[in-house]
Amino acid sequence: MTNPTACLLVIGNEVLSGRTQDANIKFLATRLGEIGMPLREVRVIPDVAATIIETVNETRARFDHVFTTGGIGPTHDDITSECVAAAFGVPWEKHPEAWARMERHYAPGEFNAARQRMATMPRGARLIDNAVSIAPGFSIGNVHVMAGVPRIMQSMFETLAPRLPGGRPVISRAVHAAGLLEGRIAEGLGEVQARFAALDLGSYPYYRPGGNGVAIVAKGTDAAAAEAAIAEVTALILALGQQPVPGEPPM
Amino acid sequence: MTNPTACLLVIGNEVLSGRTQDANIKFLATRLGEIGMPLREVRVIPDVAATIIETVNETRARFDHVFTTGGIGPTHDDITSECVAAAFGVPWEKHPEAWARMERHYAPGEFNAARQRMATMPRGARLIDNAVSIAPGFSIGNVHVMAGVPRIMQSMFETLAPRLPGGRPVISRAVHAAGLLEGRIAEGLGEVQARFAALDLGSYPYYRPGGNGVAIVAKGTDAAAAEAAIAEVTALILALGQQPVPGEPPM
Repeated sequence: MTNPTACLLVIGNEVLSGRTQDANIKFLATRLGEIGMPLREVRVIPDVAATIIETVNETRARFDHVFTTGGIGPTHDDITSECVAAAFGVPWEKHPEAWARMERHYAPGEFNAARQRMATMPRGARLIDNAVSIAPGFSIGNVHVMAGVPRIMQSMFETLAPRLPGGRPVISRAVHAAGLLEGRIAEGLGEVQARFAALDLGSYPYYRPGGNGVAIVAKGTDAAAAEAAIAEVTALILALGQQPVPGEPPM
Repeated sequence: MTNPTACLLVIGNEVLSGRTQDANIKFLATRLGEIGMPLREVRVIPDVAATIIETVNETRARFDHVFTTGGIGPTHDDITSECVAAAFGVPWEKHPEAWARMERHYAPGEFNAARQRMATMPRGARLIDNAVSIAPGFSIGNVHVMAGVPRIMQSMFETLAPRLPGGRPVISRAVHAAGLLEGRIAEGLGEVQARFAALDLGSYPYYRPGGNGVAIVAKGTDAAAAEAAIAEVTALILALGQQPVPGEPPM
Protein backbone atom coordinates (compact mmCIF):
# COMPACT_ATOMS: atom_id res chain seq x y z
CA MET A 1 0.00 0.00 0.00
CA THR A 2 1.31 3.40 -0.93
CA ASN A 3 0.76 6.31 1.43
CA PRO A 4 -1.57 9.09 0.25
CA THR A 5 0.19 12.35 -0.64
CA ALA A 6 -0.34 15.87 0.68
CA CYS A 7 0.30 19.38 -0.62
CA LEU A 8 0.18 22.54 1.49
CA LEU A 9 -0.79 25.98 0.18
CA VAL A 10 0.34 28.81 2.44
CA ILE A 11 -1.83 31.73 1.34
CA GLY A 12 -0.79 35.22 2.29
CA ASN A 13 1.20 38.23 1.18
CA GLU A 14 2.78 38.49 4.62
CA VAL A 15 5.03 35.44 4.12
CA LEU A 16 6.02 36.53 0.59
CA SER A 17 6.89 40.04 1.76
CA GLY A 18 9.12 38.76 4.57
CA ARG A 19 6.91 40.36 7.21
CA THR A 20 6.01 37.02 8.79
CA GLN A 21 8.16 33.97 9.46
CA ASP A 22 6.16 30.93 8.41
CA ALA A 23 5.39 28.66 11.35
CA ASN A 24 2.93 26.28 9.72
CA ILE A 25 5.05 24.29 7.27
CA LYS A 26 7.13 22.49 9.91
CA PHE A 27 4.12 21.63 12.06
CA LEU A 28 2.07 20.23 9.20
CA ALA A 29 5.06 18.45 7.64
CA THR A 30 5.69 16.67 10.92
CA ARG A 31 2.08 15.78 11.68
CA LEU A 32 1.33 14.65 8.13
CA GLY A 33 4.34 12.32 8.28
CA GLU A 34 3.08 10.95 11.57
CA ILE A 35 -0.33 10.08 10.15
CA GLY A 36 1.19 8.51 7.04
CA MET A 37 0.25 11.19 4.51
CA PRO A 38 3.65 12.70 3.68
CA LEU A 39 3.88 16.28 2.50
CA ARG A 40 5.15 16.31 -1.10
CA GLU A 41 5.02 20.01 -1.96
CA VAL A 42 4.39 23.41 -0.42
CA ARG A 43 3.42 26.54 -2.30
CA VAL A 44 3.40 29.98 -0.77
CA ILE A 45 1.10 32.16 -2.86
CA PRO A 46 -0.26 35.70 -2.57
CA ASP A 47 -3.80 36.90 -1.81
CA VAL A 48 -4.60 37.08 -5.54
CA ALA A 49 -7.82 35.39 -6.63
CA ALA A 50 -6.65 34.06 -10.00
CA THR A 51 -3.51 32.59 -8.43
CA ILE A 52 -5.40 30.91 -5.58
CA ILE A 53 -8.04 29.42 -7.89
CA GLU A 54 -5.48 28.12 -10.38
CA THR A 55 -3.22 26.70 -7.68
CA VAL A 56 -6.06 24.96 -5.83
CA ASN A 57 -7.22 23.33 -9.05
CA GLU A 58 -3.76 22.28 -10.15
CA THR A 59 -2.77 20.79 -6.81
CA ARG A 60 -6.06 19.07 -5.94
CA ALA A 61 -5.74 17.16 -9.22
CA ARG A 62 -2.14 16.23 -8.53
CA PHE A 63 -2.10 15.30 -4.83
CA ASP A 64 -4.43 13.13 -2.75
CA HIS A 65 -5.07 15.93 -0.24
CA VAL A 66 -4.49 19.69 -0.27
CA PHE A 67 -4.31 21.75 2.91
CA THR A 68 -4.52 25.53 2.90
CA THR A 69 -3.56 27.96 5.66
CA GLY A 70 -4.46 31.63 5.73
CA GLY A 71 -6.97 33.99 4.21
CA ILE A 72 -10.15 32.99 6.06
CA GLY A 73 -10.48 35.99 8.39
CA PRO A 74 -12.93 38.90 8.08
CA THR A 75 -10.81 41.47 6.19
CA HIS A 76 -10.67 42.43 2.51
CA ASP A 77 -7.50 40.37 1.94
CA ASP A 78 -9.15 37.16 3.23
CA ILE A 79 -10.34 35.62 -0.02
CA THR A 80 -9.41 31.94 0.31
CA SER A 81 -12.94 30.69 0.94
CA GLU A 82 -14.58 32.35 -2.08
CA CYS A 83 -11.62 31.31 -4.27
CA VAL A 84 -12.03 27.66 -3.22
CA ALA A 85 -15.72 27.90 -4.15
CA ALA A 86 -14.73 29.29 -7.54
CA ALA A 87 -12.14 26.53 -8.00
CA PHE A 88 -14.80 23.89 -7.37
CA GLY A 89 -17.39 25.76 -9.45
CA VAL A 90 -19.95 25.82 -6.64
CA PRO A 91 -21.86 28.74 -5.07
CA TRP A 92 -20.30 30.60 -2.14
CA GLU A 93 -23.13 30.90 0.32
CA LYS A 94 -24.19 31.15 3.96
CA HIS A 95 -23.28 27.95 5.83
CA PRO A 96 -26.19 27.49 8.27
CA GLU A 97 -24.23 25.71 11.03
CA ALA A 98 -21.21 28.06 10.86
CA TRP A 99 -23.58 31.02 10.79
CA ALA A 100 -25.49 29.75 13.85
CA ARG A 101 -22.28 29.19 15.83
CA MET A 102 -20.98 32.67 15.12
CA GLU A 103 -24.32 34.36 15.72
CA ARG A 104 -24.44 32.73 19.17
CA HIS A 105 -20.86 33.80 19.90
CA TYR A 106 -21.15 37.53 19.21
CA ALA A 107 -23.07 40.11 21.21
CA PRO A 108 -26.20 41.49 19.51
CA GLY A 109 -25.18 43.76 16.62
CA GLU A 110 -21.57 42.49 16.60
CA PHE A 111 -22.09 39.73 14.02
CA ASN A 112 -21.54 42.27 11.28
CA ALA A 113 -21.06 41.92 7.52
CA ALA A 114 -17.30 41.33 7.82
CA ARG A 115 -17.78 38.51 10.31
CA GLN A 116 -20.65 37.04 8.28
CA ARG A 117 -18.12 36.48 5.47
CA MET A 118 -16.42 33.93 7.77
CA ALA A 119 -19.68 31.93 7.85
CA THR A 120 -19.97 32.05 4.05
CA MET A 121 -18.52 28.94 2.41
CA PRO A 122 -18.55 26.83 -0.75
CA ARG A 123 -21.76 24.80 -1.01
CA GLY A 124 -21.12 21.33 0.40
CA ALA A 125 -18.38 22.46 2.79
CA ARG A 126 -17.92 20.26 5.86
CA LEU A 127 -16.90 22.24 8.94
CA ILE A 128 -13.56 21.95 10.72
CA ASP A 129 -14.20 23.07 14.30
CA ASN A 130 -12.27 26.01 15.73
CA ALA A 131 -11.86 25.54 19.47
CA VAL A 132 -9.83 28.75 19.76
CA SER A 133 -11.82 31.52 18.08
CA ILE A 134 -15.14 30.01 16.86
CA ALA A 135 -15.00 30.75 13.10
CA PRO A 136 -14.62 27.27 11.53
CA GLY A 137 -12.45 26.05 8.71
CA PHE A 138 -13.87 23.56 6.22
CA SER A 139 -13.20 20.67 3.90
CA ILE A 140 -14.59 20.35 0.39
CA GLY A 141 -13.59 17.37 -1.73
CA ASN A 142 -9.91 16.72 -0.96
CA VAL A 143 -9.18 20.35 0.01
CA HIS A 144 -8.96 21.34 3.68
CA VAL A 145 -9.13 25.05 4.45
CA MET A 146 -7.62 26.20 7.76
CA ALA A 147 -6.68 29.42 9.51
CA GLY A 148 -3.21 30.97 9.16
CA VAL A 149 -2.65 31.80 12.84
CA PRO A 150 -0.54 28.83 14.03
CA ARG A 151 -2.42 28.23 17.27
CA ILE A 152 -5.77 28.12 15.47
CA MET A 153 -4.43 26.10 12.53
CA GLN A 154 -2.95 23.47 14.86
CA SER A 155 -6.21 23.13 16.75
CA MET A 156 -8.11 22.78 13.45
CA PHE A 157 -5.68 20.16 12.16
CA GLU A 158 -6.09 18.01 15.27
CA THR A 159 -9.87 18.17 14.79
CA LEU A 160 -9.48 17.17 11.15
CA ALA A 161 -6.81 14.47 11.52
CA PRO A 162 -9.12 11.61 12.61
CA ARG A 163 -11.19 12.11 9.43
CA LEU A 164 -8.14 11.84 7.15
CA PRO A 165 -7.31 8.53 5.48
CA GLY A 166 -3.72 8.13 6.68
CA GLY A 167 -1.23 5.45 5.80
CA ARG A 168 1.86 4.01 7.44
CA PRO A 169 3.57 6.57 9.66
CA VAL A 170 6.88 7.95 8.40
CA ILE A 171 9.53 7.25 11.01
CA SER A 172 13.02 8.64 11.34
CA ARG A 173 16.36 7.28 12.59
CA ALA A 174 19.56 9.32 12.75
CA VAL A 175 23.23 9.37 13.64
CA HIS A 176 25.59 12.33 13.76
CA ALA A 177 29.26 13.05 14.24
CA ALA A 178 31.16 16.21 15.11
CA GLY A 179 34.00 16.95 12.72
CA LEU A 180 32.50 14.80 9.97
CA LEU A 181 32.58 16.34 6.47
CA GLU A 182 29.92 15.57 3.86
CA GLY A 183 32.54 15.40 1.12
CA ARG A 184 34.26 12.49 2.87
CA ILE A 185 31.21 10.37 3.65
CA ALA A 186 29.32 11.13 0.41
CA GLU A 187 30.54 8.16 -1.63
CA GLY A 188 29.83 5.54 1.03
CA LEU A 189 26.51 7.15 1.84
CA GLY A 190 25.41 6.93 -1.77
CA GLU A 191 26.10 3.20 -1.64
CA VAL A 192 23.97 2.79 1.49
CA GLN A 193 21.15 4.76 -0.17
CA ALA A 194 21.36 2.46 -3.20
CA ARG A 195 20.96 -0.61 -0.96
CA PHE A 196 17.92 0.92 0.82
CA ALA A 197 16.03 2.38 -2.11
CA ALA A 198 12.72 2.61 -0.22
CA LEU A 199 14.27 4.90 2.40
CA ASP A 200 15.04 8.58 2.10
CA LEU A 201 18.60 9.00 3.37
CA GLY A 202 19.50 12.64 4.00
CA SER A 203 22.79 14.28 4.91
CA TYR A 204 22.59 17.55 6.84
CA PRO A 205 25.57 19.64 7.94
CA TYR A 206 25.08 21.43 11.25
CA TYR A 207 26.82 24.43 12.72
CA ARG A 208 26.62 24.73 16.50
CA PRO A 209 28.54 26.70 19.09
CA GLY A 210 29.69 23.30 20.43
CA GLY A 211 31.11 22.25 17.07
CA ASN A 212 30.19 21.55 13.46
CA GLY A 213 29.39 18.18 11.96
CA VAL A 214 27.00 16.22 9.82
CA ALA A 215 23.77 14.41 10.72
CA ILE A 216 22.59 11.48 8.61
CA VAL A 217 18.84 10.84 8.77
CA ALA A 218 16.95 7.84 7.38
CA LYS A 219 13.22 8.31 6.86
CA GLY A 220 10.63 5.85 5.67
CA THR A 221 7.79 3.61 6.73
CA ASP A 222 9.98 0.59 7.61
CA ALA A 223 11.61 1.08 11.00
CA ALA A 224 13.78 -2.04 10.73
CA ALA A 225 15.18 -0.89 7.38
CA ALA A 226 15.88 2.59 8.76
CA GLU A 227 17.74 1.06 11.71
CA ALA A 228 19.76 -1.21 9.43
CA ALA A 229 20.70 1.72 7.18
CA ILE A 230 21.77 3.85 10.13
CA ALA A 231 23.85 0.93 11.44
CA GLU A 232 25.70 0.87 8.12
CA VAL A 233 26.22 4.64 8.22
CA THR A 234 27.51 4.32 11.78
CA ALA A 235 30.11 1.83 10.56
CA LEU A 236 31.06 4.23 7.75
CA ILE A 237 31.62 7.06 10.21
CA LEU A 238 33.83 4.82 12.37
CA ALA A 239 35.82 3.79 9.28
CA LEU A 240 36.47 7.49 8.61
CA GLY A 241 37.96 7.78 12.11
CA GLN A 242 35.08 9.87 13.53
CA GLN A 243 32.89 9.23 16.56
CA PRO A 244 29.26 8.43 15.65
CA VAL A 245 26.57 9.52 18.12
CA PRO A 246 23.06 8.04 17.81
CA GLY A 247 20.19 10.43 17.01
CA GLU A 248 20.08 14.02 15.85
CA PRO A 249 22.58 16.56 17.23
CA PRO A 250 21.28 18.50 20.25
CA MET A 251 19.82 21.93 19.39
CA MET B 1 7.80 50.87 -14.66
CA THR B 2 6.70 47.58 -13.13
CA ASN B 3 9.06 45.78 -10.81
CA PRO B 4 10.51 42.45 -11.99
CA THR B 5 9.07 39.38 -10.22
CA ALA B 6 10.82 36.62 -8.31
CA CYS B 7 10.03 33.02 -7.43
CA LEU B 8 11.91 30.91 -4.87
CA LEU B 9 12.32 27.13 -5.03
CA VAL B 10 13.29 25.58 -1.71
CA ILE B 11 14.68 22.19 -2.71
CA GLY B 12 15.00 19.51 -0.08
CA ASN B 13 13.21 16.63 1.60
CA GLU B 14 14.25 17.96 5.01
CA VAL B 15 11.77 20.85 4.91
CA LEU B 16 8.94 18.67 3.59
CA SER B 17 9.53 16.04 6.29
CA GLY B 18 9.43 18.60 9.09
CA ARG B 19 13.02 17.84 10.09
CA THR B 20 14.22 21.35 9.28
CA GLN B 21 12.55 24.71 9.92
CA ASP B 22 12.97 26.80 6.79
CA ALA B 23 15.09 29.86 7.40
CA ASN B 24 15.57 31.06 3.84
CA ILE B 25 12.12 32.25 2.77
CA LYS B 26 11.95 35.20 5.15
CA PHE B 27 15.48 36.39 4.37
CA LEU B 28 15.02 36.26 0.60
CA ALA B 29 11.49 37.71 0.77
CA THR B 30 12.83 40.70 2.70
CA ARG B 31 15.94 41.27 0.58
CA LEU B 32 14.10 40.84 -2.73
CA GLY B 33 11.57 43.44 -1.61
CA GLU B 34 14.40 45.79 -0.72
CA ILE B 35 15.97 45.53 -4.18
CA GLY B 36 12.60 45.99 -5.90
CA MET B 37 12.10 42.43 -7.16
CA PRO B 38 9.22 41.23 -4.99
CA LEU B 39 8.83 37.55 -4.26
CA ARG B 40 5.59 36.31 -5.85
CA GLU B 41 5.68 32.61 -5.09
CA VAL B 42 7.63 29.99 -3.16
CA ARG B 43 7.61 26.28 -3.84
CA VAL B 44 9.11 23.73 -1.50
CA ILE B 45 9.85 20.60 -3.51
CA PRO B 46 11.59 17.29 -2.82
CA ASP B 47 14.94 15.97 -4.10
CA VAL B 48 13.21 14.26 -7.03
CA ALA B 49 14.72 14.92 -10.46
CA ALA B 50 11.50 15.01 -12.50
CA THR B 51 9.89 17.41 -10.02
CA ILE B 52 12.88 19.75 -9.94
CA ILE B 53 13.21 19.85 -13.74
CA GLU B 54 9.50 20.46 -14.30
CA THR B 55 9.28 23.11 -11.59
CA VAL B 56 12.37 24.99 -12.82
CA ASN B 57 10.98 25.08 -16.35
CA GLU B 58 7.49 26.12 -15.30
CA THR B 59 8.64 28.90 -12.99
CA ARG B 60 11.43 30.32 -15.16
CA ALA B 61 8.85 30.85 -17.89
CA ARG B 62 6.40 32.50 -15.50
CA PHE B 63 8.60 34.76 -13.35
CA ASP B 64 11.37 37.19 -14.25
CA HIS B 65 13.85 35.52 -11.89
CA VAL B 66 13.93 32.18 -10.10
CA PHE B 67 16.11 31.53 -7.06
CA THR B 68 16.82 28.05 -5.74
CA THR B 69 18.19 27.04 -2.35
CA GLY B 70 19.46 23.59 -1.45
CA GLY B 71 20.73 20.48 -3.17
CA ILE B 72 24.18 21.63 -4.31
CA GLY B 73 26.33 19.75 -1.81
CA PRO B 74 28.41 16.62 -2.44
CA THR B 75 25.99 13.86 -1.40
CA HIS B 76 23.68 11.59 -3.42
CA ASP B 77 20.61 13.71 -2.58
CA ASP B 78 22.23 16.89 -3.99
CA ILE B 79 20.85 16.89 -7.52
CA THR B 80 19.81 20.50 -8.11
CA SER B 81 22.71 21.35 -10.42
CA GLU B 82 22.28 18.45 -12.85
CA CYS B 83 18.50 19.00 -12.84
CA VAL B 84 18.94 22.67 -13.79
CA ALA B 85 21.20 21.56 -16.67
CA ALA B 86 18.49 19.12 -17.79
CA ALA B 87 15.84 21.85 -17.50
CA PHE B 88 17.88 24.11 -19.79
CA GLY B 89 18.79 21.23 -22.10
CA VAL B 90 22.54 21.88 -21.81
CA PRO B 91 25.41 19.55 -20.84
CA TRP B 92 26.32 19.18 -17.17
CA GLU B 93 30.10 19.45 -17.20
CA LYS B 94 33.23 20.47 -15.32
CA HIS B 95 33.25 24.23 -14.74
CA PRO B 96 36.95 25.17 -15.11
CA GLU B 97 36.95 28.12 -12.70
CA ALA B 98 34.90 26.37 -9.98
CA TRP B 99 37.08 23.30 -10.41
CA ALA B 100 40.29 25.34 -10.04
CA ARG B 101 39.02 27.09 -6.91
CA MET B 102 38.09 23.84 -5.22
CA GLU B 103 41.25 22.03 -6.28
CA ARG B 104 43.31 24.82 -4.66
CA HIS B 105 41.20 24.66 -1.51
CA TYR B 106 41.53 20.95 -0.72
CA ALA B 107 44.64 19.08 0.41
CA PRO B 108 46.10 16.72 -2.18
CA GLY B 109 43.85 13.68 -2.59
CA GLU B 110 40.91 15.36 -0.81
CA PHE B 111 39.28 16.82 -3.94
CA ASN B 112 37.48 13.53 -4.46
CA ALA B 113 34.69 12.47 -6.82
CA ALA B 114 31.92 13.66 -4.47
CA ARG B 115 33.46 17.12 -4.18
CA GLN B 116 34.14 17.28 -7.91
CA ARG B 117 30.36 17.08 -8.43
CA MET B 118 30.16 20.52 -6.77
CA ALA B 119 32.39 21.92 -9.55
CA THR B 120 30.21 20.30 -12.25
CA MET B 121 27.62 22.71 -13.64
CA PRO B 122 25.33 23.42 -16.57
CA ARG B 123 27.31 24.70 -19.57
CA GLY B 124 27.22 28.51 -19.56
CA ALA B 125 26.82 28.81 -15.77
CA ARG B 126 28.10 32.05 -14.25
CA LEU B 127 29.55 31.55 -10.77
CA ILE B 128 28.11 33.00 -7.58
CA ASP B 129 31.03 33.26 -5.15
CA ASN B 130 30.89 31.41 -1.85
CA ALA B 131 32.89 33.32 0.76
CA VAL B 132 32.00 30.80 3.47
CA SER B 133 32.86 27.35 2.15
CA ILE B 134 34.39 27.77 -1.37
CA ALA B 135 31.99 25.67 -3.52
CA PRO B 136 30.21 28.30 -5.67
CA GLY B 137 26.58 28.66 -6.67
CA PHE B 138 25.74 29.76 -10.21
CA SER B 139 23.33 31.61 -12.45
CA ILE B 140 22.11 30.35 -15.79
CA GLY B 141 19.59 32.41 -17.72
CA ASN B 142 17.18 33.81 -15.15
CA VAL B 143 17.78 30.99 -12.63
CA HIS B 144 20.08 31.53 -9.64
CA VAL B 145 21.24 28.42 -7.80
CA MET B 146 22.35 28.85 -4.19
CA ALA B 147 23.22 26.72 -1.17
CA GLY B 148 20.58 25.70 1.37
CA VAL B 149 22.60 26.42 4.52
CA PRO B 150 21.32 29.88 5.52
CA ARG B 151 24.72 31.40 6.28
CA ILE B 152 26.11 30.34 2.90
CA MET B 153 22.92 31.24 1.01
CA GLN B 154 22.90 34.74 2.49
CA SER B 155 26.52 35.31 1.56
CA MET B 156 25.81 34.09 -1.99
CA PHE B 157 22.78 36.33 -2.33
CA GLU B 158 24.73 39.43 -1.33
CA THR B 159 27.34 38.55 -3.98
CA LEU B 160 24.60 38.12 -6.54
CA ALA B 161 22.40 41.11 -5.66
CA PRO B 162 24.42 43.80 -7.47
CA ARG B 163 24.07 41.84 -10.74
CA LEU B 164 20.27 41.65 -10.45
CA PRO B 165 18.10 44.14 -12.32
CA GLY B 166 16.06 45.48 -9.41
CA GLY B 167 13.24 47.96 -9.45
CA ARG B 168 11.70 50.34 -6.93
CA PRO B 169 12.19 49.11 -3.36
CA VAL B 170 9.09 47.85 -1.60
CA ILE B 171 8.60 49.86 1.57
CA SER B 172 6.37 49.23 4.54
CA ARG B 173 4.43 51.42 6.99
CA ALA B 174 2.39 50.10 9.89
CA VAL B 175 0.16 50.92 12.82
CA HIS B 176 -1.13 48.60 15.54
CA ALA B 177 -3.51 48.67 18.46
CA ALA B 178 -3.94 46.38 21.44
CA GLY B 179 -7.51 45.21 21.91
CA LEU B 180 -8.43 45.91 18.30
CA LEU B 181 -10.49 43.18 16.60
CA GLU B 182 -10.23 42.48 12.87
CA GLY B 183 -13.98 41.98 12.62
CA ARG B 184 -14.59 45.54 13.77
CA ILE B 185 -12.08 47.34 11.54
CA ALA B 186 -12.59 45.14 8.47
CA GLU B 187 -15.24 47.23 6.72
CA GLY B 188 -13.39 50.54 7.07
CA LEU B 189 -10.13 48.90 6.13
CA GLY B 190 -11.61 47.56 2.92
CA GLU B 191 -12.61 51.11 2.01
CA VAL B 192 -9.06 52.38 2.61
CA GLN B 193 -7.69 49.55 0.47
CA ALA B 194 -10.10 50.51 -2.31
CA ARG B 195 -8.82 54.10 -2.24
CA PHE B 196 -5.16 52.95 -2.38
CA ALA B 197 -5.36 50.22 -4.99
CA ALA B 198 -1.61 50.27 -5.73
CA LEU B 199 -0.79 49.41 -2.12
CA ASP B 200 -1.04 46.05 -0.43
CA LEU B 201 -2.87 46.65 2.84
CA GLY B 202 -2.64 43.70 5.23
CA SER B 203 -4.32 43.02 8.55
CA TYR B 204 -2.47 40.74 10.98
CA PRO B 205 -3.74 39.70 14.40
CA TYR B 206 -1.01 39.27 17.00
CA TYR B 207 -0.95 37.32 20.24
CA ARG B 208 1.64 38.49 22.76
CA PRO B 209 2.09 37.97 26.47
CA GLY B 210 1.58 41.73 26.82
CA GLY B 211 -1.79 41.62 25.05
CA ASN B 212 -3.46 40.75 21.77
CA GLY B 213 -4.31 43.12 18.97
CA VAL B 214 -4.12 43.76 15.26
CA ALA B 215 -1.36 45.28 13.12
CA ILE B 216 -2.23 46.98 9.84
CA VAL B 217 0.63 47.07 7.33
CA ALA B 218 0.75 49.02 4.05
CA LYS B 219 3.33 47.84 1.51
CA GLY B 220 4.18 49.27 -1.86
CA THR B 221 6.70 51.30 -3.80
CA ASP B 222 5.16 54.71 -2.98
CA ALA B 223 6.13 55.80 0.54
CA ALA B 224 3.84 58.86 0.54
CA ALA B 225 0.83 56.72 -0.40
CA ALA B 226 1.68 54.17 2.30
CA GLU B 227 1.91 56.96 4.87
CA ALA B 228 -1.40 58.47 3.76
CA ALA B 229 -3.12 55.06 3.95
CA ILE B 230 -1.75 54.39 7.44
CA ALA B 231 -2.92 57.86 8.53
CA GLU B 232 -6.44 56.91 7.43
CA VAL B 233 -6.21 53.59 9.27
CA THR B 234 -5.00 55.43 12.37
CA ALA B 235 -8.12 57.61 12.24
CA LEU B 236 -10.27 54.49 11.86
CA ILE B 237 -8.72 52.94 14.97
CA LEU B 238 -9.36 56.12 16.95
CA ALA B 239 -12.97 56.19 15.75
CA LEU B 240 -13.36 52.63 17.12
CA GLY B 241 -12.21 53.91 20.52
CA GLN B 242 -8.85 52.12 20.45
CA GLN B 243 -5.36 53.57 20.88
CA PRO B 244 -3.28 53.42 17.64
CA VAL B 245 0.49 52.99 18.02
CA PRO B 246 2.75 53.71 15.01
CA GLY B 247 4.77 50.82 13.58
CA GLU B 248 4.64 47.06 14.09
CA PRO B 249 3.98 45.64 17.57
CA PRO B 250 7.16 44.83 19.53
CA MET B 251 8.22 41.15 19.33
